[in-house]
Amino acid sequence: MIRVGIVGYGNLGKGVESAVINSDDMELVGVFSRRNPGDVVVQSDVKVYSIDDAFIMKDQIDVMVMCGGSANDLVEQTPMFAKHFNVIDSFDTHARIPEHFANVDAASQVEKTVSIISVGWDPGLFSVQRLYGQAVLPNGKDYTFWGKGVSQGHSDAIRRIEGVLDARQYTIPVEAALASVRNNEDPALSTRQKHTRECFVVIEEGADAKKIEETIVQMPNYFADYDTTVHFISMEELQTNHAGIPHGGVVFRSGKTGMNLETHQLIEYKLELDSNPEFTASVLVAYARAAYRLHQNGDFGCKTVFDIAPGLLHEADGATLRKQLL
Amino acid sequence: MIRVGIVGYGNLGKGVESAVINSDDMELVGVFSRRNPGDVVVQSDVKVYSIDDAFIMKDQIDVMVMCGGSANDLVEQTPMFAKHFNVIDSFDTHARIPEHFANVDAASQVEKTVSIISVGWDPGLFSVQRLYGQAVLPNGKDYTFWGKGVSQGHSDAIRRIEGVLDARQYTIPVEAALASVRNNEDPALSTRQKHTRECFVVIEEGADAKKIEETIVQMPNYFADYDTTVHFISMEELQTNHAGIPHGGVVFRSGKTGMNLETHQLIEYKLELDSNPEFTASVLVAYARAAYRLHQNGDFGCKTVFDIAPGLLHEADGATLRKQLL
Repeated sequence: MIRVGIVGYGNLGKGVESAVINSDDMELVGVFSRRNPGDVVVQSDVKVYSIDDAFIMKDQIDVMVMCGGSANDLVEQTPMFAKHFNVIDSFDTHARIPEHFANVDAASQVEKTVSIISVGWDPGLFSVQRLYGQAVLPNGKDYTFWGKGVSQGHSDAIRRIEGVLDARQYTIPVEAALASVRNNEDPALSTRQKHTRECFVVIEEGADAKKIEETIVQMPNYFADYDTTVHFISMEELQTNHAGIPHGGVVFRSGKTGMNLETHQLIEYKLELDSNPEFTASVLVAYARAAYRLHQNGDFGCKTVFDIAPGLLHEADGATLRKQLL
Repeated sequence: MIRVGIVGYGNLGKGVESAVINSDDMELVGVFSRRNPGDVVVQSDVKVYSIDDAFIMKDQIDVMVMCGGSANDLVEQTPMFAKHFNVIDSFDTHARIPEHFANVDAASQVEKTVSIISVGWDPGLFSVQRLYGQAVLPNGKDYTFWGKGVSQGHSDAIRRIEGVLDARQYTIPVEAALASVRNNEDPALSTRQKHTRECFVVIEEGADAKKIEETIVQMPNYFADYDTTVHFISMEELQTNHAGIPHGGVVFRSGKTGMNLETHQLIEYKLELDSNPEFTASVLVAYARAAYRLHQNGDFGCKTVFDIAPGLLHEADGATLRKQLL
């Protein structure tokens, strides 16, 4: 049994808890939280510890799954834990990945641990698909579409507007753009042509709806470059109809083969996720298995999904995989 | 530059020729054929040699791409060449993969070469997708659909019927079955419910069309378990409208996550290939790059797509991939 610990217990931590419990070859040793352990209500009978107690338990844990946020938590926690544990994280601040990789790699040299960063679906499985697509069809174009799904970052941006009580923002791929790629038209698509944004917003009584709507649709980086729709709804409606955290998207590789690059080939990879954090957690847990196995084989240092052979992710051994899945 | 050789020059060999020539980090050293080299008309200025001359050229070739058929060629040729070369093949007789793997692995020990077998899209990229799907969503169901595309085996089976001059058979996924999977219905699908078969057949003047049609639709293993449509057409129409070798298909993983496995998650991987052999060849060439790199690192023995980290397939180095694709 692979002994797994969880650092941080938000939606992602909960997803890891259920994914580990539903894996046959894993055992959940503990949840480590910055909160008072007595205040953390878990879904299973797993024990909750203070995050400070993690290091004295290092001999009881094979892999630590880091479930904090990229901006404030992982950037410090992953290197700190990588010194003593095999770790997995879902660091998703694209621009800072090289720097995070270097920090975690240095930390992983201390006790020769394995760390795998930026695991999830984007970065993660989508990145892997982009890589396979480019490797197999070097002459071609990539397209990544996100949604339909809830963007936490955009929802948060709306919540920060004065007069807003709560909000949910959906990113939606433009059907005509998807159709054009599927139709082998190799379109050049602007930001506006790829995605629309739909916002469901609850405001304070007496707040200026018109002004809030303008603030949203004109917000630079977040909304100004998109066709954005704003719906004002009640708190009850938000809680009833927008409680889930669905997401997904599509990665295409549209390429050409043949002596004169005249033959069209299209690869499409699509995710439809009813729960973004539960799916991300499931990916983290599969890569925790790989980290454990690599460490067992004496490997160490920082890795990404690009460095992990698919066979390391699956519970079955090589001979079984060749027989049943090849 | 990675120096590549091609053994066998049919449609697949031609595809490898164009894929190598269109790769920036590869050089095509030669085509090796059982035919008289003077009789082999290649698409590029690559030199053609007798297959017997391959072994004296082993220091000039980094990877040999085996382009024969599974049934008669690869089963003998891949182990023979693996003794002296890094090799890639597309062995696709599913039931015999474990045996072929063992033979090639033994041969690869002789001079510590790297061999990667059963590379292509099924077996190959579809297998990889099935593996990722099961690893990430261990609680779920797999679905593989093939087509729309030309099945060479089924076309050949029709050609063997007396009175048939030529034939092209298309395998077509049933739209209702695809829709049911996409609709999260987790259907149990019979052979007949998954695919239909459409045949375009050219017959001799005076041949008994009705009898030929009955022979086709009742043919065990090939057609009896499917809804099969037969069209009799002229040789001109066959050559005009059915000259291509398109194929493709879809791999789904439909899974559940959460403490009580109540949250639905769907992964869909779809290929739409205007040329099956050119795409298969492109996959072979990407894995030739991986074989070369593994050999450079001192690795050896037989591998499959499950053993190859994605990053080994792409021309760019790790730091570039992390920066641009993660």
